[in-house]
Amino acid sequence: MKNFADKLIKEIKKKKSHVIVGLDPDYDKLPQSLRKAYAVSIKGVGAAISEFNCKLIDAVYELVPSIKPQIAFYERYGIEGVKAFIKTVEYGKQKGLIVIEDAKRNDIGSTATAYSEGHIGRVKLATHSVSIYDVDAITVNPYLGADGINPFLHDVNKYGKGIFVLVKTSNPSSKDLQDLEVVYNRKRLKLYEMVARLVNEWGNNSKGNSGYSSVGAVVGATFPKEAKILRKLMPQAYFLVPGYGTQGGKASDIINCFNTDGYGALIAASRSINYAFKSDKRFKDHEFADAAREAVIRMNKEINKELQKAKLLKW
Amino acid sequence: MKNFADKLIKEIKKKKSHVIVGLDPDYDKLPQSLRKAYAVSIKGVGAAISEFNCKLIDAVYELVPSIKPQIAFYERYGIEGVKAFIKTVEYGKQKGLIVIEDAKRNDIGSTATAYSEGHIGRVKLATHSVSIYDVDAITVNPYLGADGINPFLHDVNKYGKGIFVLVKTSNPSSKDLQDLEVVYNRKRLKLYEMVARLVNEWGNNSKGNSGYSSVGAVVGATFPKEAKILRKLMPQAYFLVPGYGTQGGKASDIINCFNTDGYGALIAASRSINYAFKSDKRFKDHEFADAAREAVIRMNKEINKELQKAKLLKW
Repeated sequence: MKNFADKLIKEIKKKKSHVIVGLDPDYDKLPQSLRKAYAVSIKGVGAAISEFNCKLIDAVYELVPSIKPQIAFYERYGIEGVKAFIKTVEYGKQKGLIVIEDAKRNDIGSTATAYSEGHIGRVKLATHSVSIYDVDAITVNPYLGADGINPFLHDVNKYGKGIFVLVKTSNPSSKDLQDLEVVYNRKRLKLYEMVARLVNEWGNNSKGNSGYSSVGAVVGATFPKEAKILRKLMPQAYFLVPGYGTQGGKASDIINCFNTDGYGALIAASRSINYAFKSDKRFKDHEFADAAREAVIRMNKEINKELQKAKLLKW
Repeated sequence: MKNFADKLIKEIKKKKSHVIVGLDPDYDKLPQSLRKAYAVSIKGVGAAISEFNCKLIDAVYELVPSIKPQIAFYERYGIEGVKAFIKTVEYGKQKGLIVIEDAKRNDIGSTATAYSEGHIGRVKLATHSVSIYDVDAITVNPYLGADGINPFLHDVNKYGKGIFVLVKTSNPSSKDLQDLEVVYNRKRLKLYEMVARLVNEWGNNSKGNSGYSSVGAVVGATFPKEAKILRKLMPQAYFLVPGYGTQGGKASDIINCFNTDGYGALIAASRSINYAFKSDKRFKDHEFADAAREAVIRMNKEINKELQKAKLLKW
């Protein structure tokens, strides 16, 4: 089973793109054409989301290495939402995309095992085991410490999967806890730096041929100064970088997330791509997929251009 | 819409019990009688879990105020697991139990809104809104700060729901981050104390007639010293206390979680009740529900006896 980080980098090189497309479907924001096509029921919402996502995937799969469905936007709609999530994951994988589930799961060891088995591992039945969501990687929360991470590490190594641990999140109030100054070994450092040290340690046994580990980190595009520090603390971690676009992160802000080899960061955008048809007046409502494709092409250009300026573009 | 903390305390008084029964179904541990009755498939697992839980609920609903299904053990089995979760929630509520979903969800604001709407609030469709999981309360993770909590607070107040924020979790490595010493306003305190201060603040607008807030805290039974400190820092927060039983927490350990009024803590046990038939040799495999009932009766007695010793028993 190949290493996750190696698989990811292979796709990045193939597509010449550091972009990951978030899929955060919100029935309220879907194109009228889709909202109308389905009955006003939860079942209809699930079908509308599936169609929306599959069309977005068709429009972008040749342009990016990876997609990031945010499970909150699916489980919100119950069974029908989870069905749409599963369909999205399957369709994305069929199209050769690496699927990173944004779930921010975590719990004590025995419970973290259940999460890991369901999302990236396999669940045991009486006579055999089966995979359930089978995403390529999942985001996890570090607040419970190593106990809650170890079951995921087990499956990362067993099944060639990845995790991205929240370190410094993109939202304004990430400062409430993550920026607190902690005292450790008589030194003062920020809590996010402390988490970064742990992430680096947790990733030591999951390194691929590329030198990158399958244990990555979530680092917000909205905090370029912090990213610079974190890049040094976690040289082997791939960064999953949310906050580009709608949340305010710019192309120049994310350069610090890259290593000197020109790799190490996957830049996520969700709303600015999913709902590009609302802001880009060249497109009509039913042309949402074309609008998303244009937004991705633009984002690829912006990021590649910024990398070129920094002499970090490797293709 | 009545206040969640008030509803909870009413049920605690009615049942004369401070116990919450965790429902953590694991197909591997289910009684042979149930495993055999269903085909070896994910669908069969879902049906087995539903039957297991409904029988457990039948056995304990007169004895305890509340149940706590841990969503990880359901979503692990995909769609069929989520169906079993929904059935468990519905059946528990039918039987008059307060259902606290252990989900430890959290994310940035817009995503936390999606979680909150799905789990404790309502989701919008074109012409109306519907409730999905509709649990009475949910556990949440504080690592993302206030942004990720506010959407839940909105629904807590709008729909008479509750949240329990992770403060000091029951697992050994909760020390990795939660016990770090942080510097705040020139004082040194533990990270869990810092979170406790936030929880107290977040709960200020959700107090009921009882004086308790619908914003509670998760405090592990395995850390009685820390509980004493936390009880003072969050006088108005109801504590959800995991770690009793299998994880090592004893009745004498949890007294510090109570206030001087004899309320303020809901003591959780999952595995020691769900799988009591495995350790209590008086019961055969198919008598799992009777074994669970006995385990709950014993736990109620242990806790009430300990409260009586401390002169905190109020019935």
